[in-house]
Amino acid sequence: MANISCSSKGISIFLFLCIFFHSSALAAKTRHFKWAVEYMHWSPDGLENVVMGINGQFPGPTIRAKAGDTLHIELTNKLHTEGVVIHWHGIRQFGTPWADGTASISQCAINPGETFVYRFKVDKAGTYFYHGHYGMQRSAGLYGSLIVDVAESQKEPFHYNGEFNLLLSDWWHKSSHEQEVDLSSNPFRWIGEPQTLLINGRGQYNCSLAGKFSKSSINPPCQLRGNEQWAPQILHVQPNKTYRLRVASTTALASLNLAIGNHKMVIVEADGNYVQPFSVEDMDIYSGESYSILFTTDQNPSNNYWISISVRGREPKTPQALTILNYSPNSPSKLPTSPPPMPPLWNNYTHSKAFSSKILALMGSPKPPSNYDRRIILLNTQNRIDGYIKWSINNVSLTLPSTPYIGSIKYGLKNAFDLKSPPENFPLDYNVVKPAKNQNSTYGSGVYTLRFNTSVDVILQNANALAENVSEIHPWHLHGHDFWVLGYGEGRFTKEDEKKFNLKNPPLRNTAVIFPYGWTALRFVADNPGVWAFHCHIEPHLHMGMGVVFAEGVQRLRKIPNEALGCGLTAKLFMNKKGN
Amino acid sequence: MANISCSSKGISIFLFLCIFFHSSALAAKTRHFKWAVEYMHWSPDGLENVVMGINGQFPGPTIRAKAGDTLHIELTNKLHTEGVVIHWHGIRQFGTPWADGTASISQCAINPGETFVYRFKVDKAGTYFYHGHYGMQRSAGLYGSLIVDVAESQKEPFHYNGEFNLLLSDWWHKSSHEQEVDLSSNPFRWIGEPQTLLINGRGQYNCSLAGKFSKSSINPPCQLRGNEQWAPQILHVQPNKTYRLRVASTTALASLNLAIGNHKMVIVEADGNYVQPFSVEDMDIYSGESYSILFTTDQNPSNNYWISISVRGREPKTPQALTILNYSPNSPSKLPTSPPPMPPLWNNYTHSKAFSSKILALMGSPKPPSNYDRRIILLNTQNRIDGYIKWSINNVSLTLPSTPYIGSIKYGLKNAFDLKSPPENFPLDYNVVKPAKNQNSTYGSGVYTLRFNTSVDVILQNANALAENVSEIHPWHLHGHDFWVLGYGEGRFTKEDEKKFNLKNPPLRNTAVIFPYGWTALRFVADNPGVWAFHCHIEPHLHMGMGVVFAEGVQRLRKIPNEALGCGLTAKLFMNKKGN
Repeated sequence: MANISCSSKGISIFLFLCIFFHSSALAAKTRHFKWAVEYMHWSPDGLENVVMGINGQFPGPTIRAKAGDTLHIELTNKLHTEGVVIHWHGIRQFGTPWADGTASISQCAINPGETFVYRFKVDKAGTYFYHGHYGMQRSAGLYGSLIVDVAESQKEPFHYNGEFNLLLSDWWHKSSHEQEVDLSSNPFRWIGEPQTLLINGRGQYNCSLAGKFSKSSINPPCQLRGNEQWAPQILHVQPNKTYRLRVASTTALASLNLAIGNHKMVIVEADGNYVQPFSVEDMDIYSGESYSILFTTDQNPSNNYWISISVRGREPKTPQALTILNYSPNSPSKLPTSPPPMPPLWNNYTHSKAFSSKILALMGSPKPPSNYDRRIILLNTQNRIDGYIKWSINNVSLTLPSTPYIGSIKYGLKNAFDLKSPPENFPLDYNVVKPAKNQNSTYGSGVYTLRFNTSVDVILQNANALAENVSEIHPWHLHGHDFWVLGYGEGRFTKEDEKKFNLKNPPLRNTAVIFPYGWTALRFVADNPGVWAFHCHIEPHLHMGMGVVFAEGVQRLRKIPNEALGCGLTAKLFMNKKGN
Repeated sequence: MANISCSSKGISIFLFLCIFFHSSALAAKTRHFKWAVEYMHWSPDGLENVVMGINGQFPGPTIRAKAGDTLHIELTNKLHTEGVVIHWHGIRQFGTPWADGTASISQCAINPGETFVYRFKVDKAGTYFYHGHYGMQRSAGLYGSLIVDVAESQKEPFHYNGEFNLLLSDWWHKSSHEQEVDLSSNPFRWIGEPQTLLINGRGQYNCSLAGKFSKSSINPPCQLRGNEQWAPQILHVQPNKTYRLRVASTTALASLNLAIGNHKMVIVEADGNYVQPFSVEDMDIYSGESYSILFTTDQNPSNNYWISISVRGREPKTPQALTILNYSPNSPSKLPTSPPPMPPLWNNYTHSKAFSSKILALMGSPKPPSNYDRRIILLNTQNRIDGYIKWSINNVSLTLPSTPYIGSIKYGLKNAFDLKSPPENFPLDYNVVKPAKNQNSTYGSGVYTLRFNTSVDVILQNANALAENVSEIHPWHLHGHDFWVLGYGEGRFTKEDEKKFNLKNPPLRNTAVIFPYGWTALRFVADNPGVWAFHCHIEPHLHMGMGVVFAEGVQRLRKIPNEALGCGLTAKLFMNKKGN
């Protein structure tokens, strides 16, 4: 970066140059991309498979932009029979809700052979990512990183000498198509645990980088030339420097724990928002979350160190993903001298909760409204509908309509979705720590219509699943907004719990976890005209109905691009009016 | 059927009854169906897999109608991310070209969650079938039978005591999605031979019904309870009766040979047209063809007999498909006393050609025009385009546009497809028995526009493929018409060959084969306003570009249903006009 000091005390010509430099530096850019989505053969973990790639890459290309830039992405669908959309996870899409990339909600899926332009502003620096949001195309590998740097004139509130980016995912050998069929079957078939965890799309299924530390013969040491599609990306560092590690999780299922052997990590950013820096030995990251971590290479420089990713919250049947922190001038193939970090026990939720509770907004961050205008309590339950296993919210299992809400709400269509608003709460006598007495539920496509610019509380209430003594982690992700996480608690949320809310420095996030049998309280301002998904970021859970839809200020939208509405009842509406 | 004699010499009340009976018998029906397409677990050959089913059935439900009936099929797409269409193979769709079920040609693919109504008349009795016509959804198992009986007042020109229907297909254990990726890859990956041949969706992969006749241990005898999804459908017959066997092939690849052990077969119908009956020991059937066969149960009634389906024209790596002709009162599980019929050698094309040349129109069938107004010669070659292996016709490899031709032609859209007509012929110096000197080709989406009501000759010219000494069988299927097969020949077609054309009693077909290094001459009248695919019915060949598009009288079409045009540039056209 050019380091020109612009002082007001210079001579006039220098001042002119300064102004010129400043304005050109400040001028936000429009960054153009041409992307084609297609299936391709790939070996994410050493076993050849089919992935959904972009421009021949898996994961898709990393986008790097500066805050204030406009991204202009021409996305061509080169699949043969499938539609496609891409969601820009964490980007709020102020003024461009049709670019949010959620099929059935913000746009029609892009048909095979067609091109759709995603054009939107990245208004806030941070660590983001993008991914498919149609069927289970995220599970098929449709994802990549989106990094927004601070604007040229701005500075991060911390210093570092270098930077790395890790996009975490999980991988099944069964195709996402077949997974879809499994999850939609009666009798139900669960997809099981992932075969492999991937770091930047790379994992090792048939071997282990840490093979020499393993007592079992199941995972022999990896024989790598280094140019394999599944060879780990090594992090090359100099001793005694500080590095920023960006990390985001786009897993379909797995909750993860990240550690860097022997190194402390200082968390400085979460979901594109600065947090009060705090130091940990290991950290949890749930699907849909992103973080920036600072670490200093202050350990014995003659060694290399493990970076490990492990499963949390589910009995781990998937090996740790590993890569190497390579201190210069050591050989990158020199293995660390000790075994990879041991993650906390998978069901040690105390550890997870302790981590979550440490995440607080950096001083000076926007504060939440002190009151809420509306509070919606969302109970999640596992259910049976006609024998099919589903997830429901307040007893409604979300089924998306074929006409996107953004069009059917804007044009007041009557038959596009359930016009009745879904329940604001659940029965008083529901026992969240026991299996439901009545495990029935219903399908629904209703919308929570939020009054524009009001303050909305959402209490996510976890409960027992179908089987006794089972309650799972669910990371909930909100489109179009950040929310403040006001607090976490155990058991059923009560009015009393409100007193414990953190209104002083709650962190702004776009994803928040609910712990087993617990609740999580969120607050946000409904200030972004559009229709927004709010859902469990676990792909099979969303597929099974675990989500809701918020709509706000849709009538304020002027022109929705035709391209977003050329399907279902909106297409019909326009074609009939023309009287073809 | 009620056998009431209606004589004009009756008393008046009887006459009235007669008229009433006649008119109600003649009144064609509209038959309503509600179908949902979805993927489901199924074991077509004993190995569990995923198939594309209709209403929970594989193959899809058999439609049975009478000539003159109208079919009204509400097809709902219950796939998660894929579009779908269904083609009614052999039905000419007079006046309803938008119901032909070809994505990109006659309609927009039906989006997930949407319903499209196929409404069309079945005007001619015969043995037909239906199948997916988008991507490789036929390979995924989207097919079923469509049987049209003669109208109530009509009679078939032959007699029989009972009837069976066999729909033949081939099955791969690799999903059609993965096959698509393989075929579209560089380096190219061929899908290989099918694992199993299916009769009415049933085959035996891990065992053989005829296991006791097999010397190898690869195919142990099948252990069947009879209620398996893959158990063969047994044909139960009485001795000394005549049966009609309807048979149609919807294979993705395999050319087949059918035989009934010890029984002669008399061919009476081909592709919904009566033929001059002739008798054979075995018969070939190519993908896209259908036949009716009469056989008489005149063999030793204390035995059962094999019905066998074997691969023709490709080195057979797929076991015979078998089922049993069960003479009453024998047990259906009593195996025939001798081994299954031995098919002719796979590359005994003399045998195949002899069979094809026996197929002649039944006396009294419509005759072809004695002259042609236009002759189009279509050379098929295997090519490389940018390293990708493709098939081309006159050096154009067909790539379908995202806007269906029927709409873009009707509304004169300029950018929907290549407006230049593809070549009518191929260079004089092209040597059809050698690999091409220049193996390059180009992609194209041009259309052959046929003058309405003119007589069109198509000469299908086969050639050497990429490798030396390789030329394959290609069964070509025409939508919207039957054509007369005027003749077959060897080598390059010349003007001289015209003299050998059969203009006296050529058979009417909708599918005709070209033999290796040979040509096949067809004639049809362009009398059906619409846009019609004409293509090799081998699914991977079509996928690789082996087809052309004919358009005729499109301006005569009045109202094309909006539902067929709600995608691509036609959707855009209508939406822009509305000025949303």
